[in-house]
Formats: sequence, structure tokens, C-alpha cells
Amino acid sequence: MAKINSNFAKLTAGYVFPEINRRVAEFSQQNPKASIIKLGIGDTTLALTESVTKALHEKIDLLSNKNTYTGYGAERGEEKLREALVTKYRDQYGIDLKATEVFIGDGAKSDSSNIQSIFSADSVVAVQDPVFPVYVDSSVITGKTGSSQDGRYQNIVYMDCNEENGFFPELPAEHVDIIYLCSPNNPTGTVATHGQLQKFVDYAIEKKAVIIFDAAYSEFISDNTLPRSIYEIEGAKSCAIEINSFSKWAGFTGVRLGWTIVPENLIVDDCAEGELNQAWNRRQSTMFNGASNIVQAGGLAVVQNPEEQQALINYYMTNAKHLYQAFSELGYSVFGGKNAPYVWVKLPDGVDSWAYFDILLRQTNIVGTPGAAFGKNGDNYFRFSSFASQEDVTEAIDRIRKMDKDNE
Amino acid sequence: MAKINSNFAKLTAGYVFPEINRRVAEFSQQNPKASIIKLGIGDTTLALTESVTKALHEKIDLLSNKNTYTGYGAERGEEKLREALVTKYRDQYGIDLKATEVFIGDGAKSDSSNIQSIFSADSVVAVQDPVFPVYVDSSVITGKTGSSQDGRYQNIVYMDCNEENGFFPELPAEHVDIIYLCSPNNPTGTVATHGQLQKFVDYAIEKKAVIIFDAAYSEFISDNTLPRSIYEIEGAKSCAIEINSFSKWAGFTGVRLGWTIVPENLIVDDCAEGELNQAWNRRQSTMFNGASNIVQAGGLAVVQNPEEQQALINYYMTNAKHLYQAFSELGYSVFGGKNAPYVWVKLPDGVDSWAYFDILLRQTNIVGTPGAAFGKNGDNYFRFSSFASQEDVTEAIDRIRKMDKDNE
Repeated sequence: MAKINSNFAKLTAGYVFPEINRRVAEFSQQNPKASIIKLGIGDTTLALTESVTKALHEKIDLLSNKNTYTGYGAERGEEKLREALVTKYRDQYGIDLKATEVFIGDGAKSDSSNIQSIFSADSVVAVQDPVFPVYVDSSVITGKTGSSQDGRYQNIVYMDCNEENGFFPELPAEHVDIIYLCSPNNPTGTVATHGQLQKFVDYAIEKKAVIIFDAAYSEFISDNTLPRSIYEIEGAKSCAIEINSFSKWAGFTGVRLGWTIVPENLIVDDCAEGELNQAWNRRQSTMFNGASNIVQAGGLAVVQNPEEQQALINYYMTNAKHLYQAFSELGYSVFGGKNAPYVWVKLPDGVDSWAYFDILLRQTNIVGTPGAAFGKNGDNYFRFSSFASQEDVTEAIDRIRKMDKDNE
Repeated sequence: MAKINSNFAKLTAGYVFPEINRRVAEFSQQNPKASIIKLGIGDTTLALTESVTKALHEKIDLLSNKNTYTGYGAERGEEKLREALVTKYRDQYGIDLKATEVFIGDGAKSDSSNIQSIFSADSVVAVQDPVFPVYVDSSVITGKTGSSQDGRYQNIVYMDCNEENGFFPELPAEHVDIIYLCSPNNPTGTVATHGQLQKFVDYAIEKKAVIIFDAAYSEFISDNTLPRSIYEIEGAKSCAIEINSFSKWAGFTGVRLGWTIVPENLIVDDCAEGELNQAWNRRQSTMFNGASNIVQAGGLAVVQNPEEQQALINYYMTNAKHLYQAFSELGYSVFGGKNAPYVWVKLPDGVDSWAYFDILLRQTNIVGTPGAAFGKNGDNYFRFSSFASQEDVTEAIDRIRKMDKDNE
């Protein structure tokens, strides 16, 4: 007599982006002529770059010829791609990794949730609030939480991020086992400093906790004083896993590719060096079968042609700059947007973020993301994504200025 | 204080294919001139077909142009591909499905293991023995089993498949919740009949158990009296999930694509219609982010051009036929190979399958798969895969004939 996993019933609402899509679809149906501008979901809009396109075509040609066709790929991913990432970490960040510490996956969403499976099922998970919902929802689905009360799940430790602490949390006061940190942060767009991360690394080493460091937006950092990898922090290799993605800086949101680093030095309470690396390898070779070989060939071209990707990044960061400036000029407190593609706008006191979502959609036909979708501390904030066309962002700013004036 | 998931320590041996790779690599190193023929892992060798190649190139061109670029795909997968699969099921099998019942994934390995997450964590899993190791190993990793004793995990119900029962099991005598069935079977190459499957469907409905039906080799069935989908069986929509793959019939082993059907009518003990379908959608949209859009475009071409894939299937099935004939002529009892790409050879009494693996590798430089890798009932069997070139299979048969003669 099979039973459904009862944890699904604990999930309080649809995953935020489907819920936004539902509201937008409803609005579009009622207002078929509305010209909607999407600054909500962080979905890329620029085409794949030239070298990437070329590499993808070439790989397909290899697969279309019996003499050059290949089937199943290597465990952990194509060696050339892993070696290229090792080189990137060494040359750009001064970090030494082994190719066996790098695992190619199909994106940060899959890896940041499935990585939990190498740790004890009763691990206590800590997250920043506001937070990328995947860390929380996957903890719920895999049974690490109690039910939700007042918008927070029991057994999850929420680390408050707010204007007062610069959107980077204090060390948790409670017992925690797995600590998710995301920097550059989604949704706040703020970037943790060396000092801030060092405090967490020292804490994790002392408590034998593990940090899951989501660096999916690291390529958007232009300030060279800020860390782009957790392994720039002393001691991090013994306590941190890093997850990264090709989605945003290479336009791979639909193409699907990412990587995860599980250092051989990483240990937790009851295991030896290398064991966690082996466990993730075993999990992935049993319950996953590698990212597409076509896509991995494209990923190699991404890593080998950073200047092409830089043009994409610059384009989106120009959007971020304009959004930041516009809201600042309108008198809002604005965060992020300088070393991250998200602009985090503080709403006037008493304005609820879902209400602002509906107002913005109705009055300007712009879709953004309500801060509440990322946690309690987002209630009074709104996230704008810069992954739109520059034309759309310019038009959006005009409409927002007009709305602001009309509502004066 | 994080702890490693202690279930990994229960896994008795490396996943079988890496272990085979290790032995082959060791042999190659010691015998660098040996011309090794691989009939072990079911890895495809024929190139992608013309329509597929064309569709892949076209999709890349769309993604390389800002005006036609698209990012994140639809939940459940591209609608055109899901609709094409609905049409395939209707036209070829006479089965009515809704597009919302079809989920596009990155392959049968991922889906057949991750599907467990929609059921209660304490579910009792039943598997055929011999069995594709993924069903068992994923059950171990996710904590559904005890430790291994004499090659079998506690809390897994092993359903014996042997020569006496035609390699299809009796109904389990013990309580079970999740029943894995694979037909055409990996590794035995045998195909379940309507009557055999009807017994399991009736049982599952009566006991409110769920059948996970792995149909990854369904395209290799040429005998039209045999079922290609579990939904050809009356009542199956209320008790069965079907998983399928593009890997073998389209050469997508490295390209990665598959699909899973979770009928809306499917119910288990404590849930309403549609709830399991929603749970899988929620799991996939939280912990996965869709198969690559490039690959899905290739998959659509596969479904729309079955005659091209039929040529691949015929090629491999010619290999299967020759392997079947050769071993039959040498006096072995041989199974499978007629409606499945695997040939399952019974070894002489007292010959252990890992010993035969080593003998075969040393004396003929052929790599096959020891039956023991699939379970206790495989101890006396050996699996040959037909996914090699016809030249290799011809050469392999010559070498095996010679070995047999030399050893007389």
C-alpha cells in the first residue's frame, strides 16, 4: 500500500515563479492588448555567443558521424571541461582544484537541492531570509522540516538579512548542519565580503557544519575586492561545497549546464577525507547520468572565450545600473545591481510586495518579483531582474516614472 | 555538526559499470596492444540520424539569434514534444494520454530513481532479480533498505526471475509498496506478456501498490503480440508510472533525454486523483529544471521520424540475432535477443559470471557484463549488449568460437 510523500502537503504555496506566471497569464487573458515587460524571473534574453554556437554545431557534427560518434560521457563530466574549469579557478581566482573535485551537472537548481542527499537525512538546514526558494522547498520535500507556521518552516533555521546588517546574516545561534549561502545574492543583489565569509567558514570548521555556497552569479562581480569563490576564503575547502551555473552569464537557462565542487578535503563529523566527494560521485552516477554531451561542448567554449560572455554580462549590468539609478532618483532605497544582476528595491512603509506586484502589473504592465516570495524579510521589498533587453528596460523605467508621477 | 548520509556505506560495491571500466582499464594498461571489443555497457555506437541532426542544428541557430532566442523552458517539458508523444501513444499503442501526464526528463536513470521521492520515505521496494542496479542502489541511498546480507539488502523484496519462470516473477508474497518492472528486460532481454503484466496490475490495484514500469527498450519489440507500454494493460493508469528513454533507439546515451508518464488517475493509499502527478511536477520544478531545449528539439525529430530510428534498431537487432545464434550453436542456453537488444547467456554449471568476465577479457579481449552484477539470479549468466558495430560483433563471435574450440 504505497503512500504519497506527505511532505509535499507541507509546501505552503506553489513555487514562486509558476505562481507569478499564473497571475501574469490571468492578466494577459483579461488584457490581451497589454504590452507586458518581464523583469521578474531571471530569464536570459541575449542569444548564445558566436564561439558557443560554433562549438555546439561542431559537436552535433561529431555525433552525426559514425566515426566520431560517442555515447555515455565520463563520470563527473567531460574531462576537458573539468580541466578548463580548474584552469579558470587557478588563473582567475588563484585557487588550486583537482579535476576530480569538479562535477558537471545540469544546473544549479538540481545540484543545490540534490546535494542534500550526501548528508544525513535529519540534517538541520540554515538559510538566509530572503532566500532562493529552492533550498527551502527541497528541504521540505526531503523531509528535513516540520510544517509551516507564519510563513516559516519548523526545523529550518532562518538567518535574517535586512538593511541593518547589509543583507548578510549573523552566525546562527541555534544548532545547524547545512548552511546555504548565496553570493552574489539572489534576491538582494548584495555580495558578501571576504570578512563576512571568513566568519562563516571559521564557524563551519568549528562546528563541523557544511556550507553550500551558491555562486551562480559570480561572473557579475566587477569589484575586484569581492570574493568570487568561497575557496578564496582560508579554510573553505574543508567545510564548503560550491555550486555554479552557466545559466546567466552564458545564456544557458534553457540549455542547462552547471558545476559543483566537492573538495577532497571536505569532511564532516563522521567521515574521512574524500568520502563526501565519493558519495556525490556515487549519487550522481546512480541517480543522474551526466549533462548532455552537446551542451558540455558549448560549456567548454564558454569557459574558453570569457570575453564573449563579458559582453553579455556588460549588457545586463547596464540594465541593472539604469534600474538602480531610476529607483534611486524616485527616492527609493535601492540595493544590489552593482555586482549582481538583481536590483532590490525597498517599498514605501506599509506597502506589501504582492500588492505592489499587482499594482505594477495593472498600472505599468511590468512583471517583477515580490520580495515576500523569498521570505518574511522580503515583505517590504521588490526584485527587478536585469535579464531583459535594454529597450524593454528603458521603456519599463519610463512607465514606472509615469506611474510614480500619476500617483503623487 | 553535519554527518554523511550513512546509507552510502551500505552500498556493497561500486556501481557495476564503473567497476567493469576499472577492470578493463587495468587490463588495457597491462596489455596495451589488445584490441578490445565492448559488448558490456549498453552504449550506442551509431550516429544520430539525419532528421535529428537537422533539428539540433536548427535549434542552435534559433538560440544564436536574439530575435528567436528562448530561455527557461516550460514545466513538464516542451509542449510540442509532449504532444508528439501523446500522438505516438495514441497512434501506435491505442493509448489516450493527456499532455500534462507526460514529463520530459533527462533520461530513465534519473527519473527511475528520483520518482521514489513522490512516495513515502518508508516505502517497501520490490525488484526483479536480476535487476538494473539503479532501482536498488537509489533505494539504498534514499534510506529505504537495511544493510546487505549475502548480496541482498534487507527491506528490499527480491522477485526471482529464472529459467523456470521465463524470467518473469511471481507476485510478491510479502508486503510491498513500489514494484519496479522492466520490460523488455534489462538484463535478461525477455519481454513480459499482456497476461503477465495483467497479473501485476490487478495485484497493484488490489494492494494499492504502485508499479514503476521501465520501458526504455520498448522500441526494440518487433513481435506485435507483446505490450510496448504498461497502459496497454487494463487498469494500469490507476496504478502504474511509465518511464522511457531516447537513449538506445535514438543514440541519445550521451545526448540525454527521456520521459515519464504519471497518469492523473494514479492513486495510492492516501491521495486523490491528480495529486501524484502534481507532486512529480513539484519535485521536478523544484529539484530539476528541465532537459536541455536543444536536446528536446532533437527528441521531437526522433518521435516525428520513426523510420529513421527503425534503421538503427534493425542494425542493433541484427547484432542481437547473430550473438543469439552463435551462442546457441555453441550449445549454450540463450535468452532475450529477439525483442530486446540484450542477449542473456546461461553459463555452464559452476562457472561464476565474474570469472567468465575475466576469462573472456583475457582470452578474447571482449568485454561483457557478468550476470552477478544484476543480482543473485544472475550468478550463472552473462549479458551481451548488441549496441556495437556489426564488424565488432562479427569479430567477437569469431573470437568466442575460437576460444570455445581451444578450450575443448
